[in-house]
Amino acid sequence: MNLDPTDPEGSIARAAKASSNWGRWGADDVLGTLNHLDEAKRREGAALVRRGVSFSLSQRFDMNGPQKGWRRRTNPVHTMLDTGTDAALGNQGFPHGIGGADDVISMPLQCSTQWDGLGHIFDHGKAWNGRPAERVVTSDGDLVTGIEHMASHVAGRGVLLDVGRTIGADGVSGADGTAGTTATAGTTAAAGELPDGFAVTEAHLTATAEAQGVAIGRGDIVLVRTGQLARVRRDGWGDYAGGPAPGLSFTTAGWLHGSEIAAIATDTWGFEVRPNEFEHAFQPLHQVAIPHIGLLIGEMWDLDALARDCAADGVYEFWLTAAPLPITGAVGSPVNPIAVK
Amino acid sequence: MNLDPTDPEGSIARAAKASSNWGRWGADDVLGTLNHLDEAKRREGAALVRRGVSFSLSQRFDMNGPQKGWRRRTNPVHTMLDTGTDAALGNQGFPHGIGGADDVISMPLQCSTQWDGLGHIFDHGKAWNGRPAERVVTSDGDLVTGIEHMASHVAGRGVLLDVGRTIGADGVSGADGTAGTTATAGTTAAAGELPDGFAVTEAHLTATAEAQGVAIGRGDIVLVRTGQLARVRRDGWGDYAGGPAPGLSFTTAGWLHGSEIAAIATDTWGFEVRPNEFEHAFQPLHQVAIPHIGLLIGEMWDLDALARDCAADGVYEFWLTAAPLPITGAVGSPVNPIAVK
Amino acid sequence: MNLDPTDPEGSIARAAKASSNWGRWGADDVLGTLNHLDEAKRREGAALVRRGVSFSLSQRFDMNGPQKGWRRRTNPVHTMLDTGTDAALGNQGFPHGIGGADDVISMPLQCSTQWDGLGHIFDHGKAWNGRPAERVVTSDGDLVTGIEHMASHVAGRGVLLDVGRTIGADGVSGADGTAGTTATAGTTAAAGELPDGFAVTEAHLTATAEAQGVAIGRGDIVLVRTGQLARVRRDGWGDYAGGPAPGLSFTTAGWLHGSEIAAIATDTWGFEVRPNEFEHAFQPLHQVAIPHIGLLIGEMWDLDALARDCAADGVYEFWLTAAPLPITGAVGSPVNPIAVK
Amino acid sequence: MNLDPTDPEGSIARAAKASSNWGRWGADDVLGTLNHLDEAKRREGAALVRRGVSFSLSQRFDMNGPQKGWRRRTNPVHTMLDTGTDAALGNQGFPHGIGGADDVISMPLQCSTQWDGLGHIFDHGKAWNGRPAERVVTSDGDLVTGIEHMASHVAGRGVLLDVGRTIGADGVSGADGTAGTTATAGTTAAAGELPDGFAVTEAHLTATAEAQGVAIGRGDIVLVRTGQLARVRRDGWGDYAGGPAPGLSFTTAGWLHGSEIAAIATDTWGFEVRPNEFEHAFQPLHQVAIPHIGLLIGEMWDLDALARDCAADGVYEFWLTAAPLPITGAVGSPVNPIAVK
Repeated sequence: MNLDPTDPEGSIARAAKASSNWGRWGADDVLGTLNHLDEAKRREGAALVRRGVSFSLSQRFDMNGPQKGWRRRTNPVHTMLDTGTDAALGNQGFPHGIGGADDVISMPLQCSTQWDGLGHIFDHGKAWNGRPAERVVTSDGDLVTGIEHMASHVAGRGVLLDVGRTIGADGVSGADGTAGTTATAGTTAAAGELPDGFAVTEAHLTATAEAQGVAIGRGDIVLVRTGQLARVRRDGWGDYAGGPAPGLSFTTAGWLHGSEIAAIATDTWGFEVRPNEFEHAFQPLHQVAIPHIGLLIGEMWDLDALARDCAADGVYEFWLTAAPLPITGAVGSPVNPIAVK
Repeated sequence: MNLDPTDPEGSIARAAKASSNWGRWGADDVLGTLNHLDEAKRREGAALVRRGVSFSLSQRFDMNGPQKGWRRRTNPVHTMLDTGTDAALGNQGFPHGIGGADDVISMPLQCSTQWDGLGHIFDHGKAWNGRPAERVVTSDGDLVTGIEHMASHVAGRGVLLDVGRTIGADGVSGADGTAGTTATAGTTAAAGELPDGFAVTEAHLTATAEAQGVAIGRGDIVLVRTGQLARVRRDGWGDYAGGPAPGLSFTTAGWLHGSEIAAIATDTWGFEVRPNEFEHAFQPLHQVAIPHIGLLIGEMWDLDALARDCAADGVYEFWLTAAPLPITGAVGSPVNPIAVK
Repeated sequence: MNLDPTDPEGSIARAAKASSNWGRWGADDVLGTLNHLDEAKRREGAALVRRGVSFSLSQRFDMNGPQKGWRRRTNPVHTMLDTGTDAALGNQGFPHGIGGADDVISMPLQCSTQWDGLGHIFDHGKAWNGRPAERVVTSDGDLVTGIEHMASHVAGRGVLLDVGRTIGADGVSGADGTAGTTATAGTTAAAGELPDGFAVTEAHLTATAEAQGVAIGRGDIVLVRTGQLARVRRDGWGDYAGGPAPGLSFTTAGWLHGSEIAAIATDTWGFEVRPNEFEHAFQPLHQVAIPHIGLLIGEMWDLDALARDCAADGVYEFWLTAAPLPITGAVGSPVNPIAVK
Repeated sequence: MNLDPTDPEGSIARAAKASSNWGRWGADDVLGTLNHLDEAKRREGAALVRRGVSFSLSQRFDMNGPQKGWRRRTNPVHTMLDTGTDAALGNQGFPHGIGGADDVISMPLQCSTQWDGLGHIFDHGKAWNGRPAERVVTSDGDLVTGIEHMASHVAGRGVLLDVGRTIGADGVSGADGTAGTTATAGTTAAAGELPDGFAVTEAHLTATAEAQGVAIGRGDIVLVRTGQLARVRRDGWGDYAGGPAPGLSFTTAGWLHGSEIAAIATDTWGFEVRPNEFEHAFQPLHQVAIPHIGLLIGEMWDLDALARDCAADGVYEFWLTAAPLPITGAVGSPVNPIAVK
């Protein structure tokens, strides 16, 4: 796919048309590319559990998170309804020595490790499957493709593409990765990390899979590690939420469609490379991937512990369960993805 | 175990002493019975994926939930930060036709399908492992055993005990179940449902497992279906949140400890039978199970679809992933448990 | 004004046209009838402070409030960030013996004693002053007439019309009140209370003012006591939130406009009589009063203590300050109105 | 009063003893210094309304506020339950053309313009009037001195002390102000603003009152303008929330007590000078003023518009209504104070 930086609107329209899955699973579809994830794929995935070791791919949800308030996205506020101090002091009114603690949370559904629901992004007023955005997501939430419909589906074969480790900070390890490199001056990427502004192309993804000795197939859940989360964990959040970041190139739209993957997730705030590759654009790959491909996209996943294990044993495939909370009408969901090898 | 209805405090103390796991996994333990769930158990669990079919065991999270405000436990309030209507009307200020929807939730962590964390219940000011409650859970949350520590652990072999279907509304199917029956007059339990006030004893659990042809072992995650959720789904919530309900008898404390299960969950609000079996007691089995056994307890799970499938194919064991959201310092977590057969 | 119960749409349109203030205070107006409240009126109001006694006209904000969840309107959830128990136990980390308590609230802005902002109600897609609703209130809030614009204005002369006490449960005290009576069978209104379903007409308002010996003038803030809050305080909330209630008749639209009052408030959930006087209508007087008259409407005020004092000293006018919280873009605000006599 | 910077604990203890009002208004008191504000004072205050002009002394409540997340104090999150865009698109299901907008807020009660309640601060485990902190403020809120008790009281005579304008950036205007000056290097205070770190002493307060020609008496509500809010409005919030700031010197404790004022408020985050005047202390004047004096303290008030008016007409006294929202059990409240001259 070619990309004309001066023509975002045309490029987006061409990619949307080329990658569209509208109607592919019927007019009533609410699952998008999760349709690729079938029972055979689950059997294949479960067979990957060889050692029995499990990994959480979630960041912790607390006030020390990445959000800075952009568009009212805050970090989670967790407060207590009852505490052990009150229990210890006999303030609770329960009989026979029992005491309790309870709690409450207030948080944006996309404040940390998450899935974007199908109602999260629109293109020119159209939601997934060509529906009018204003009929899908109102103040009452996503009336059609709410994330609750995905509740039972997101369990299958996961594949890690550790692009950070394989392609590395210089973008030249093994493949023609340099073509996509647009690293921002001033970032300091350590070994195993792509610099901010690095656009991950199909060539990088393919080279990484080859170097790792793993193949990606229809129905897989693909996890792309850039290393940015490791960097901000070391250096501070900075502009992790919305600032420069490595990520998928807009040119991967065709691969995202043609590979027939079920879902994809990264360790970055916004999945795609930032600054975006067009002048004045805002998340153009989202604009193609969610409403047109119907692709389930994960963001801010913590892939570091899993990646270390994969590097150690050379196995980059695993059983992955990443079930969204079935919040009725939600356009996103926090998630604690569990990989088991 | 004998139960003296007139001596809750003594009965609780005896059960606590008999079932205590304090110190079993060291002074620093933050996992409790999840220590029983090891890598071998995960390999055993994963081998149970034969068909590749998956089930969500979660209720939907919305305003139509079971909560009625007791101790400020409300149903989830889900609001939108951005909508498709605004996107369609061009109100969002994004370039090139992209539009978005975002959302926020405010909810008690134990408002619907959930895990109780180890910091949820205390006995006479003592939390799990004998720690002083006031040093564990303050207004800043659970500083020691916050549910984030369990993030990667809850994936293994699940076993459904469909006591509702096997023992049934009359409590006499196959075993000495009548001993535990204290059904409340006036409830109308349909086939496959235990009546409210029905105390599920070890004998019921054993008889159910035998009737189903399934064995429970160390490290399993046991799901006990009473049928109450099916009933309230049919008849309305009524007093589901805190009112009369079928559930585990206090006398199962010894079994919960001795069976070395990793976790247990029910389709009821409060896990144990209600009214509780003592005069004026409040959740006495919690008082033993959480601080003394260190048991992970799930509540308000929706086991009906899974139970129908198990009844159809006669297989009551499966791979189960039920990872809490790693909310730092939380004493509970909503969860979307996924069973795969 | 005549009211045809079978023609809500036509009646609303006629009343809207007859009562419109669109353009009266310029195209940029964000204050509506608060324009009637001028400095002379404030001087007049302040002169009414003779004894120096003050009254709060607010209900308490807590979980025991009137809301039942309709359209996600819940009661306020108040939680603590720090407590005295933690302070007493030395859990807070502050030096030299200082301890603190902090708190948080989550609540609909119209959950209890409140003002409706000018962006609260639209008529056929038009907001106050004829603006397109979709350009005024988006997911980002009220971009034009947010309640913050009223921050400094709502202080002036208040007048209590205790219709409950004057007209009474039978609706016949002194005036032709029976014309508006449509009391719902089954309610039991005590002395000083209008029954549910009682429509307060201009004649009732006028008769009450005359009986009380008070005149209403331009720029006044009028408080209409029906007595319903006293009733539900005695009998339980029941359907206070949205159910049958006494309240202003649709036919008062002309008086609300012609009297040139600055604002009006009642002790009921919805200001106007319920059931509404048309078949299948929903708050038709709101539909005229807010977008067309630009009238500031208060609801769920607690007028009982003030009313007792007024009955005792015969003085029904006072200095009233009822400043909304200046929440940017809000379409309503909780308020603690203070009357001083 | 002397201040020994090396002995915070002793200094606090001495000031607490010297200024204590414990028991002054009986063992059951829940009002503290609001007891000084009586009906005569309200009559005196109302007589100050000469022009009829009103001023809101509140900042706007929104995401652009001062909070930075310290101790989970965030800025308010305001979201919509219904919008004009949905109304315009006919998404709401109401009859006859009526549409509506509704909203929700989630916020710390002390996130912006506010009152500190009597349960906000403790000294060595003691709350106002000598009560044990752990019996006053639990996870259920302030069970004794909740701010709802103040609902009707805070209306009376207000006096502005514009210390910023009178004493000025150099701290030498007219009085022996230099003694208290501990300005932090690097701040740039414009005319009319005290520099950060400037400790306002009794001498400064007295000199300001004299220069302004106004007297302070028993029961007054005193507003102290430092000018810091004007500075951060110009320069950005920076460390307004908790960083260096001008404010009351610890040495004013005796004056706060002896003057018998009913309440006091400033335009700063924390009322007293920061850094605090002791080594390693945290808000030592709060520790005396709230639990021992029982003083109602306001923070983050916006006094600038009022101050400009006072400077213009030379009148620094006015009628002030600053009623907290009666949130049951709250230890603080947002407030929109209204001054009328």
